[in-house]
Amino acid sequence: MKKILLLGAGRSSPVLIQYILDRATASEWQLSIGDVSEEAAKEKTHGHERAEAIKFDVNDDAQRQYEIERTDLVISLLPAALHYLVATDCVKYKKHFLTASYVSPQIQSLHDDALKNDVLLLNECGLDPGIDHMSAMEIIHRLKAGGGVLQTFKSYTGGLVAPESDNNPWGYKISWNPRNVILAGQGTARYIEDGEYKYIPYGRIFTQTENIYVEGLGNFDGYANRDSLAYRHYYGIDNIPTLLRGTLRKAGFCEAWDVFVKLGITDDNFILEDSENLTYAQIVRSYLPPRNFSGNLIDDVAALCGLDPNGESMKKVTWSGIFENRKTGLAQASPAMILQQLLEEKWKLGKSDRDMIVMQHQFEYLVNGKSEKLLSSLIVKGDDHIHTAMAKTVGLPLGIAARLLLENKIVARGVQIPVLEEIYKPVLKELELMKVKFGEVIR
Amino acid sequence: MKKILLLGAGRSSPVLIQYILDRATASEWQLSIGDVSEEAAKEKTHGHERAEAIKFDVNDDAQRQYEIERTDLVISLLPAALHYLVATDCVKYKKHFLTASYVSPQIQSLHDDALKNDVLLLNECGLDPGIDHMSAMEIIHRLKAGGGVLQTFKSYTGGLVAPESDNNPWGYKISWNPRNVILAGQGTARYIEDGEYKYIPYGRIFTQTENIYVEGLGNFDGYANRDSLAYRHYYGIDNIPTLLRGTLRKAGFCEAWDVFVKLGITDDNFILEDSENLTYAQIVRSYLPPRNFSGNLIDDVAALCGLDPNGESMKKVTWSGIFENRKTGLAQASPAMILQQLLEEKWKLGKSDRDMIVMQHQFEYLVNGKSEKLLSSLIVKGDDHIHTAMAKTVGLPLGIAARLLLENKIVARGVQIPVLEEIYKPVLKELELMKVKFGEVIR
Repeated sequence: MKKILLLGAGRSSPVLIQYILDRATASEWQLSIGDVSEEAAKEKTHGHERAEAIKFDVNDDAQRQYEIERTDLVISLLPAALHYLVATDCVKYKKHFLTASYVSPQIQSLHDDALKNDVLLLNECGLDPGIDHMSAMEIIHRLKAGGGVLQTFKSYTGGLVAPESDNNPWGYKISWNPRNVILAGQGTARYIEDGEYKYIPYGRIFTQTENIYVEGLGNFDGYANRDSLAYRHYYGIDNIPTLLRGTLRKAGFCEAWDVFVKLGITDDNFILEDSENLTYAQIVRSYLPPRNFSGNLIDDVAALCGLDPNGESMKKVTWSGIFENRKTGLAQASPAMILQQLLEEKWKLGKSDRDMIVMQHQFEYLVNGKSEKLLSSLIVKGDDHIHTAMAKTVGLPLGIAARLLLENKIVARGVQIPVLEEIYKPVLKELELMKVKFGEVIR
Repeated sequence: MKKILLLGAGRSSPVLIQYILDRATASEWQLSIGDVSEEAAKEKTHGHERAEAIKFDVNDDAQRQYEIERTDLVISLLPAALHYLVATDCVKYKKHFLTASYVSPQIQSLHDDALKNDVLLLNECGLDPGIDHMSAMEIIHRLKAGGGVLQTFKSYTGGLVAPESDNNPWGYKISWNPRNVILAGQGTARYIEDGEYKYIPYGRIFTQTENIYVEGLGNFDGYANRDSLAYRHYYGIDNIPTLLRGTLRKAGFCEAWDVFVKLGITDDNFILEDSENLTYAQIVRSYLPPRNFSGNLIDDVAALCGLDPNGESMKKVTWSGIFENRKTGLAQASPAMILQQLLEEKWKLGKSDRDMIVMQHQFEYLVNGKSEKLLSSLIVKGDDHIHTAMAKTVGLPLGIAARLLLENKIVARGVQIPVLEEIYKPVLKELELMKVKFGEVIR
């Protein structure tokens, strides 16, 4: 009997849990689901005989160490900042550790100890990061093997709403951590284009977008993501002239979102005084330059942002409710928390709504002196608001990697991301069987 | 014999040290100057028999505790983040602690323990914060005593260069911590105007300026500073409709500085890859939106910022050297560090240069139903590049407060700022004798 400890029973967990429980009896696995909410964990067990629910407090050292010591493998869907506590104990008790989060410097610092203790700490093994790395590496290795020299690699991913469930002006609903939706793009985006470093500060990230066309779905905005530069090394393409990783939103989203950025209300760094008694409209007004009031809030915000007050972007912003004379009711809140509360409600996935993942890799490469282009695209739709495309594409790579590890089919140890053939090959193969499949066009 | 331990022998220390040593023999004081550079500390003793220099490492727990235990009072001019270590030991060994830095949440948390141990932790006792608090409180208490009801209090301070030494297009030279000059305004500025909260995000802080006229000196830009809201409580004017604390720069400075902000190169949150081999021009180009190049860097930057490429602001920016095809030579540097290196050289105070402090308080108040205005201004010039106006106005309040404490003339304990009459009254009185004196106009 092998034991799996899953920490965090949030939105991304249902398909992962289903994957494990579907195989638990035959494979002799036992799943423990730990969450701050015992109820949430219990619900996720579906009463399966091989599943147990634990009320889990990651900051309780004794409990954390007890649970990690008695398991064989830990999968963490906790907030990224909490992984380090868990991963440190995993190294100590010699248990493998899987997560869909970016490798933090803290996690990276565990590499040598993990190697010493024969432990794999596999990160970035969800969708983005995750499937993007795996599918990119598969193509990069294939192109290289065919004599291709890579010139350009741009990769965009979006967690969106399926067209059949798209009934709001933004073309967006929330299928993952809503806090990350609000804070997206903060920090400076870094990439390389034609051999020159490119940096985009937060204040311009939603204005410097690319139009991305996806067959069958239409046009999207693509904006640059975090630090693309590091992936030249991870992907083994250190000298590629152009490399960019980005995020997709439906065309028009970014211009409207930039209104929130320009106003300043995506800020999470301070608490608004008396936040619960302020109206949304008051908060917006607080961010307007003084002596600039026409009296009409929408006109004033449009003027600040250089937009048509009757245009599509201002319609989107107005629809959000941010101009309403309604108290927030949220105490001790940052501007970002206020905005999150508003949009979490407005952008909620309805029970029968289907979300949608869109990923597009754009490659340009030289082969026999000739320039070729390859477009590789993935579209996955959710079944409903629980079995979302997001839960599938985050959960299945983790589930498959867990299976491979429990079956001793991965030899890599230390801090890794899934750019290794022994990981991406079987994971992509099994994803295909589950209809998470890329389509390719060569032009 | 009373012992004073001064930590940090930087730019702000010379006048403070002189104040202490001038009185050391008569008052029976012994001064120990601790600095990471023993040489810097030694130089600052001027061979005075009552002064000793210590090579001091604040992170060396044993040394820090040894030195604090054997002194009577500690003055810290260390970087603000290091005060907590020192203040904690001051509480432990029951020694008073003085600094010119803002009260951090960490320092604030020491209040109860400091009270218990009969220790004063006096913060914000330099210029800004410092003299601004003291002079404001003196006027606020006076106006209240005369039956005035405060409607508006705006207070601006600038550490500038004196007109006779102003020979660059910015009208600015650096008289204090150059890092803080580069990072100024980061975070969201908060104040209150006509009873409404006002917030300014970093991206707009240098565009939402007020014109401030100072008699005899001309026009300045005033931009809002950090969190003004907290001072309603500290100043005992919780219900004032308008309160703003701001920073002064010579008129035109802010529009030009905003070019750096808009580009994004005041960012201190990441390290530029290969920073030492990049030219300044390359770094600027990296921040420009792609496919927007005219080929002329100045034209492109002006276009991004909506400025005349031949206007005064672009002249200032060009003068900085940021468009030069010259390698930075600075390894592992953030954009902000690169900009600091450039401007520290360009904005250096020459040996015979005089810096200048300008402070202006603007009060509006009702008395007998009539609205009155009071303008209180302070102008202090430096003697030379060592005995700067900045070193005087930061050092003298600290020196005077130290004297008062050693003479047992301050009864307050716990974490304090100098808004208490027993502190501001004698400090302002002694400052006047030293020609640090406000002039008042009532309109």
